[in-house]
Amino acid sequence: MKVEFINPFLTAAKNVIETMCMTEIVPEKPYVKQGTATFGIVTGIIGMAGKNITGNMCISFEEPCIVGIVNSMLGESYTKLCPEITDAVGELTNMISSGAKKDLAEAGLNIDMATPLMIEGVGKELKQLTSGNVIVIPFKTKAGKFVIETSLSERKA
Amino acid sequence: MKVEFINPFLTAAKNVIETMCMTEIVPEKPYVKQGTATFGIVTGIIGMAGKNITGNMCISFEEPCIVGIVNSMLGESYTKLCPEITDAVGELTNMISSGAKKDLAEAGLNIDMATPLMIEGVGKELKQLTSGNVIVIPFKTKAGKFVIETSLSERKA
Repeated sequence: MKVEFINPFLTAAKNVIETMCMTEIVPEKPYVKQGTATFGIVTGIIGMAGKNITGNMCISFEEPCIVGIVNSMLGESYTKLCPEITDAVGELTNMISSGAKKDLAEAGLNIDMATPLMIEGVGKELKQLTSGNVIVIPFKTKAGKFVIETSLSERKA
Repeated sequence: MKVEFINPFLTAAKNVIETMCMTEIVPEKPYVKQGTATFGIVTGIIGMAGKNITGNMCISFEEPCIVGIVNSMLGESYTKLCPEITDAVGELTNMISSGAKKDLAEAGLNIDMATPLMIEGVGKELKQLTSGNVIVIPFKTKAGKFVIETSLSERKA
């Protein structure tokens, strides 16, 4: 995967979660995903599609991490995963992919987004039928970790 | 959901599964999905996105149904779900959504597709963050049932 397919997600995550969720996040070194299991207790998934590129963005959170982010964003006091948090993950998936879309468009890569899906559970099998690698961008917060996984690739003719 | 968002999937499923998989399928009356659980043992998911419409297509198969379809398509003798069948579901997801894309384009609705994801297990929670309904199109084959679920809706400004 090209670096221009990675940085837009990193920037968008930082913008959305630090600005809207008032939670400091520290990105770590991206790596190629091995296996097909979900990372965290809740995962948001969104399809991204354009004339020339196609793929998905997944964002997956450890439980304390997403509880902290959503409490900070909504002024709530949740202590564990609940339907409101799962829905908030869908909204975060929308916002972060929208941010990445803007950066990708500035680089001449026009995409539109599908609508978010959310699944719950650590280590659930979520296979992708992609011709390229899935790249994992890990992030740390004070309360725990989350990852963004992107599988954007150039569309085969 | 508008009827022009339903018929393209029905036609594409019939074309792909009857022509390429040599398996007769009988569509039944579409209905609005209640709840968020997966229908079958394996589910293919693909994001569909255009300037004006957005959503996902999911296709979910009972085990004997997909075993029969894939055996017929590939000339294999599988007896239960296996990684090859799950990958074949991803390919079917691609082919059926591509067929629907052509019909939608003829109706003036231009979309591009993301790449397929596959999850396994009956009754798994798969939530969608959509402003509209999820429509279920059920199909019967000799070996069992499958459903196509579509959540296309006009994009909010």
